[in-house]
Amino acid sequence: MSTNITWHHGHVSADDRRKMLGHGGAILWLTGLSGSGKSTVARLVEKKLVERGVLAYVLDGDNVRHGLNADLGFGDKDRTENIRRIAEVAKLMADAGVVVLTAFISPFRADRARARSIAIEGTFFEVHVATPLEECERRDPKGLYKKARAGEIADFTGLSSPYEAPESPELVIGADGASPEACAAQLIALLEQRGLVGARTLAG
Amino acid sequence: MSTNITWHHGHVSADDRRKMLGHGGAILWLTGLSGSGKSTVARLVEKKLVERGVLAYVLDGDNVRHGLNADLGFGDKDRTENIRRIAEVAKLMADAGVVVLTAFISPFRADRARARSIAIEGTFFEVHVATPLEECERRDPKGLYKKARAGEIADFTGLSSPYEAPESPELVIGADGASPEACAAQLIALLEQRGLVGARTLAG
Repeated sequence: MSTNITWHHGHVSADDRRKMLGHGGAILWLTGLSGSGKSTVARLVEKKLVERGVLAYVLDGDNVRHGLNADLGFGDKDRTENIRRIAEVAKLMADAGVVVLTAFISPFRADRARARSIAIEGTFFEVHVATPLEECERRDPKGLYKKARAGEIADFTGLSSPYEAPESPELVIGADGASPEACAAQLIALLEQRGLVGARTLAG
Repeated sequence: MSTNITWHHGHVSADDRRKMLGHGGAILWLTGLSGSGKSTVARLVEKKLVERGVLAYVLDGDNVRHGLNADLGFGDKDRTENIRRIAEVAKLMADAGVVVLTAFISPFRADRARARSIAIEGTFFEVHVATPLEECERRDPKGLYKKARAGEIADFTGLSSPYEAPESPELVIGADGASPEACAAQLIALLEQRGLVGARTLAG
């Protein structure tokens, strides 16, 4: 539908931004069951990074479902569009230099593959928050498993709708039921290993 | 459609971000006719701000129409949805601490009013790039006026579709046919006046 337009990066390069900020943009795409700890881990990492001078930002249901994607429901087509828009926003933010953490169930491989293909090459890191289903259901922070078991929620991921686990994620955390703090530390270690943020040399 | 979700800002406050970056987030919403210089001015300002250590980022047709809004056409409904999504993305980016410059014709008052209402209060600045129609048509950088005059483009803003000028924009630039450089300087002066970026104290 779009005609006569071409993508360009204007006058400010990714390198200019990296020099200004001291780090590059990236997307940490957290995927996992409801209650697996995605948002909690993402917000812990966000806080630790901002304290270190890294401009991190979490996209999750709290700030996306009310706003950008408020027009979307929970059917298959809308779920796919939900993930597509999030991937596009994450791309723009990472292009601006932000380390974006997305925290959505994103249960389907095809949707996550598309999110990766939308991102600028080398900036996308898939993180499987692999907290076992039994543990997610035990936590049930929003009471959703209870409702789903009572038949009040249709197509609930992990119960009545499939969760397609990542086949080759950059990182798997939480499979052993590790605490959000331990998961956050693993995620930050990944960022350091990949050179996305400087390794911490100061004490503490 | 959204249930059981609440907006919150997590653990990192706007103040935390301001301290980290040295400036707060904001939205400079540029509106004006095709060829008025919106994108050129926005990219000039972006460059000058990044050189000064201010994390600025331009949203324009180049990076939005191909991506986030690639599914939208140019009919009234899609134009309104186009502007709504841009406003939501600008809000998220400004929340992250970015000084966002949007460069879209955005011809309708209602759409711009909605964009303002979406933004976090006090962060939205409407900038009318008021280059006169005759000057825009003389420039015609993409040859669109020529095509529109030849009847090849329907609903062309300023010719066959209305442009609703802002009634109380925070800034009007370009009405006298000023150069993009002069317009950019005015925009940066606005940001300084409003305390969004520090006034330049160094020479040059």
